Amino acid sequence: MNHIIHCKCVKCGRTYAPAADITICECGGILDVIYDYESIKTRFNKEVLARRDDPTMWRYRELLPIEEDTVPTGLQVGMSPLYEAQKIAEDLGVKRLYIKDDGVNPTASLKDRASAMAVTKAIEAGYDTIACSSTGNAASSLAGNAAKAGLKTYIFVPSRAPKGKIAQLMMFGANLTAVDGSYEETFELSKAAIDKYGWYNRNAAINPYLSEGKKTVAHEICEQLDFNAPDFVAVSVGDGCTIAGVYKGLYDMYRVGLIDRIPRIISVQAQGCCPINTAVMNGEDWRPQEENTYADSIAVGVPRNPDKAINAIKDSDGICVNVTDDEIREAQKYLAKNAGVFGEPAGVTATAGLMKLSREGKLPHDTTIVSIVTGNGLKDIDSAIRSVGEPIHCGNDLAEFEEKFGL
Amino acid sequence: MNHIIHCKCVKCGRTYAPAADITICECGGILDVIYDYESIKTRFNKEVLARRDDPTMWRYRELLPIEEDTVPTGLQVGMSPLYEAQKIAEDLGVKRLYIKDDGVNPTASLKDRASAMAVTKAIEAGYDTIACSSTGNAASSLAGNAAKAGLKTYIFVPSRAPKGKIAQLMMFGANLTAVDGSYEETFELSKAAIDKYGWYNRNAAINPYLSEGKKTVAHEICEQLDFNAPDFVAVSVGDGCTIAGVYKGLYDMYRVGLIDRIPRIISVQAQGCCPINTAVMNGEDWRPQEENTYADSIAVGVPRNPDKAINAIKDSDGICVNVTDDEIREAQKYLAKNAGVFGEPAGVTATAGLMKLSREGKLPHDTTIVSIVTGNGLKDIDSAIRSVGEPIHCGNDLAEFEEKFGL
Repeated sequence: MNHIIHCKCVKCGRTYAPAADITICECGGILDVIYDYESIKTRFNKEVLARRDDPTMWRYRELLPIEEDTVPTGLQVGMSPLYEAQKIAEDLGVKRLYIKDDGVNPTASLKDRASAMAVTKAIEAGYDTIACSSTGNAASSLAGNAAKAGLKTYIFVPSRAPKGKIAQLMMFGANLTAVDGSYEETFELSKAAIDKYGWYNRNAAINPYLSEGKKTVAHEICEQLDFNAPDFVAVSVGDGCTIAGVYKGLYDMYRVGLIDRIPRIISVQAQGCCPINTAVMNGEDWRPQEENTYADSIAVGVPRNPDKAINAIKDSDGICVNVTDDEIREAQKYLAKNAGVFGEPAGVTATAGLMKLSREGKLPHDTTIVSIVTGNGLKDIDSAIRSVGEPIHCGNDLAEFEEKFGL
Repeated sequence: MNHIIHCKCVKCGRTYAPAADITICECGGILDVIYDYESIKTRFNKEVLARRDDPTMWRYRELLPIEEDTVPTGLQVGMSPLYEAQKIAEDLGVKRLYIKDDGVNPTASLKDRASAMAVTKAIEAGYDTIACSSTGNAASSLAGNAAKAGLKTYIFVPSRAPKGKIAQLMMFGANLTAVDGSYEETFELSKAAIDKYGWYNRNAAINPYLSEGKKTVAHEICEQLDFNAPDFVAVSVGDGCTIAGVYKGLYDMYRVGLIDRIPRIISVQAQGCCPINTAVMNGEDWRPQEENTYADSIAVGVPRNPDKAINAIKDSDGICVNVTDDEIREAQKYLAKNAGVFGEPAGVTATAGLMKLSREGKLPHDTTIVSIVTGNGLKDIDSAIRSVGEPIHCGNDLAEFEEKFGL
């Protein structure tokens, strides 16, 4: 991988060679993959991309941490739609508003980008088994991508995990362990087993390549906008890996000269669980918080990637905004109705943040904004049922129908 | 639309001009859209397609019933992945087996192809409201595509419809009526309202353009296989519109010279509800049946498109096979585990049929087969939970974990 200089600890700056199964720094810090952009620029540009007919995240392979001859064997991830939403732009009072719908990925979330990368790196390194602990989309995307690639998986979830997500995992044939204990205990058991059996480790707190997969969402946004950088990219934030990936993807595109500036990132967290935004807003170190939000995919009181996330907000001159669960519910219905995109609660949180900023008069008018939907509403249909309430009932009687709809 | 000769009744042969809001023949028969293939051939070929970077079903617009200047405004539908599944090919004892995963469409089913077409035709004809009666994927795909395009929808479902599907519909802002009565009564009320208010009609039994949208799944299969026609295409069959579309798409590609023969279609129905297969197998007219299958999307005892469906099987020298609900459940787990594709029960029924034919020694070995997955497993998570059973529970104890997994 001569397009990569090294992996560098975001905490202490120590560097490492980019081995396929590298994990964290000696100091405990997470690593960042450092590319040789000057060299990449000589062979990667708009014309190369325009000729490439790969409709997946791997079309940006010059910017990805894989060997030149690696053939990814996971699912067909990425190149999700970017929809312009004029009605929403008008309502928010901005020039242009785009929705990036990552809920149409193969297992229905943005996490597929990280899992496809993990599976690819595991195979590069010669592993036949891959493991992680997670309660949600990371686990199901790993199970799906590994099934496609023919890898075995061991996945650890707390036994309180939602049954729907467990069913999706089990369908994919994962060796699933429901740990009777907290998430911390679940993580500990996964660590003990991974250490003993030497499986490939897909834990997001550990593996530096996962946000390198996620960053492709930002590559796509740039290409889909014909390399006109938007002014803002809004993203929901839980453990910090996704926002870190979004920033990295934008940074990549800027460094290879495909966009002329890095958009400002709008970091949206749930008011009931916002350790990263709190740290940035108060200019202090992050501190653990309670997990008081129904948006399960971002209910992360102890974020696993706080350093990269906080850097992403600061380095992009970003904006932080926190939203209530009611504001998330409102955004879910608003987005489905006005853009035809049905996101899970965490998936629509970025849009909820934009709605709040607009209400508070904090959204500059003459701007272009991209809002990322990170997961499909079908992932959490129980919440959706509670949000929409009961439909209008009617007998087979046209007069009754007309009266009920005021026709 | 000078690439269309006329619309022709499949029952009596009477022809009509292809108006955007045409419905059925005077005799009650459904219409088929007849193209001028000789003219289309002169401007539509492999090279034209290779240069086209539209990643949606509209890339085949020369073969679609839309005006030359029409710009579709629904969701980004189509160009779903076609995965080669070597392990499944080996298990089935065939040369090559491909899975076409249509569950990754925007509202998670193949029905998006029909709804995107309906929305486009409604706008062409100047309508601002579109209506249908349905219990499932047709309704949610209409609601989503119409929301994106800014059309109003009136959707009628029987009040017994699954709550999850109702929630998805309501999210998209559909004017939803839950009719306290049978499906027949629901259909009657929708018809009365559509007749009175003149809304665009997206009922599959009525609108000849819907299977023209669905047929793009077959166009894509041909293009994704580099125009080497497979020997068989397997598809699950309920009301008959999807299999009719699949045949039409293959026929199109044959008539414009992009494939050299029409693949044989394998029609798979649930044993508890198989009026179309029964008619073909017994060489008699179709008769209504009970709806005894848990695969709700194909539980259609009175199919709405029996003529086109039966013709598709006969004209392609097709094969009929019926599967039990247990065989569908087995196929769902097998497909997710071995291909990484999690389909809804009706969505995996085609694969269940292939497994059965293979077990019975009826699948020729030296063949290439495509199996279409018509909907995402997340659409029916309750069935999935019942199928996979309980996960293995464990404390935070490595020895206990090892014992339970035999490590």
